[in-house]
Amino acid sequence: MITPAFDAWVRDELVRVEQALSRWVPAEAPAGLGEAMRYGVLDGGKRLRPLLVRAACEAVAGDLAAALRAAVAVELIHAYSLVHDDMPCMDNDVLRRGKPTVHVQFGEAGAMLAGDAMQALAFEVLTPEDLPDEVMAPQLQARLCGLLARAAGHAGMAGGQAIDLAATGKPLDEACLRDMHRRKTGALLQASVLMGAATGPCDPACWSALSDFGAALGLAFQIVDDILDVTQASDKLGKTAGKDLHANKPTYVTVLGLPEARRQATALHQQALQALARGQLADAGHLRLLADMVVDRDS
Amino acid sequence: MITPAFDAWVRDELVRVEQALSRWVPAEAPAGLGEAMRYGVLDGGKRLRPLLVRAACEAVAGDLAAALRAAVAVELIHAYSLVHDDMPCMDNDVLRRGKPTVHVQFGEAGAMLAGDAMQALAFEVLTPEDLPDEVMAPQLQARLCGLLARAAGHAGMAGGQAIDLAATGKPLDEACLRDMHRRKTGALLQASVLMGAATGPCDPACWSALSDFGAALGLAFQIVDDILDVTQASDKLGKTAGKDLHANKPTYVTVLGLPEARRQATALHQQALQALARGQLADAGHLRLLADMVVDRDS
Repeated sequence: MITPAFDAWVRDELVRVEQALSRWVPAEAPAGLGEAMRYGVLDGGKRLRPLLVRAACEAVAGDLAAALRAAVAVELIHAYSLVHDDMPCMDNDVLRRGKPTVHVQFGEAGAMLAGDAMQALAFEVLTPEDLPDEVMAPQLQARLCGLLARAAGHAGMAGGQAIDLAATGKPLDEACLRDMHRRKTGALLQASVLMGAATGPCDPACWSALSDFGAALGLAFQIVDDILDVTQASDKLGKTAGKDLHANKPTYVTVLGLPEARRQATALHQQALQALARGQLADAGHLRLLADMVVDRDS
Repeated sequence: MITPAFDAWVRDELVRVEQALSRWVPAEAPAGLGEAMRYGVLDGGKRLRPLLVRAACEAVAGDLAAALRAAVAVELIHAYSLVHDDMPCMDNDVLRRGKPTVHVQFGEAGAMLAGDAMQALAFEVLTPEDLPDEVMAPQLQARLCGLLARAAGHAGMAGGQAIDLAATGKPLDEACLRDMHRRKTGALLQASVLMGAATGPCDPACWSALSDFGAALGLAFQIVDDILDVTQASDKLGKTAGKDLHANKPTYVTVLGLPEARRQATALHQQALQALARGQLADAGHLRLLADMVVDRDS
């Protein structure tokens, strides 16, 4: 159950993440590039991935400053993927987080470059040049870069988007749909949890529990997204509702129907909580409440 | 002077780099993504950046296996930038390395995703999961990720491309043109040298010498590129000749004229060699010959 204390934690974390994004996404990048990058990532979004990083860091009593860098990096990857995904050659969407999309505002070339630079920036943030090794160990920097690159790349998010692209207008069975969602959305959500876990002590059993938690949560998130796409209006979502349906894309709702999609979201929610309980974690409270939030959200 | 021994070294290195690219750029990535990535990076290109990484590694008697990963990573970043740069919203080019460009072959969305996944893959290659720390130290992994991310991002290549985009059809003075070229092409060439240097022992004086060498060489490379764009035919270049001129883009030739552009390329060549001589390097022979090759090339 979502509590006032959890609400307060989320509010505080969002302020911290927003300040860090604003500090590290450069206003001074040349020829409008910085402006487009900032437009693409500041002032919007639920920041679920940063919250997961920070909550997982708490769960292992990890290094919160390193987790803040990881949170910013993962949000930059997420935001760049939205910038590219909205472009005319992909989903051709004009509304995102209640604002015109980046290519509408800055042109297609500007949006492509901003996305490219945001991906690079994620790895810059994870490898601070100006901090002594004691503050953020190079071992941790390398670990975080590896986790993020694998979640973002061909085996993760980019691979999922390629499947998505190829699947438009085609029937997809449940196994293929699950594979697509696991990569497209699940990989980065799972990586958020694991990047948080990497900032502290986490034995193989704990790592495996958090990995399973992240995987179940990631898939649950995307199924709920599919459900909201058909049950909510655009103004509530801050993006164009019903767009998967209109684009003739397979979703959990079109493939399995609304009741079965809801049933699976609930089952995955339970799986996530069970995995968490297995982890013998220092403090899994916020991770648990984030899982509740993901499944119970209405936007 | 280019010697037969240098030619043989280049041939051997190209085989090694090509094999490594082929091994690490995944054929099995889903929905044609792997095919597009491989098309975009295999079987073509001069591989100047990988050669610089490997030669700089030799110069500091560094770790050649780590340098091979760095070489592949930097070439992936270069290749992704070409894939995106060729797209209709950017340069709209149909010919690259003598073949149809990636978006002609795989569609715009396919090209965008392939480029995105290639950037992520660069950081995957630098952070091997399956190697023990003794084989590639996490400190080195983090260092290489940081150097590459900064060269690729807003302060480097992506920033330079944003300036390039904004400069089309506008007069640019020499200082702005130099700044654009330093970022757009120079940053990644300089990073190639420094990534090679990072694989071995390199004191601050040696680092500074190699950094200056890379900066001079990087700018010389782009000036020579500007010269070849107006003096060579497309079939020789393997890409569309005269395109900067037709696109009304400022270049060293349009801003300074051909004789002055040639004079500056020669001066930078000398600067690069002088920096190298300062470095007290174990074996700078191949770096020196690569500098000659960059300036004396005809394609």
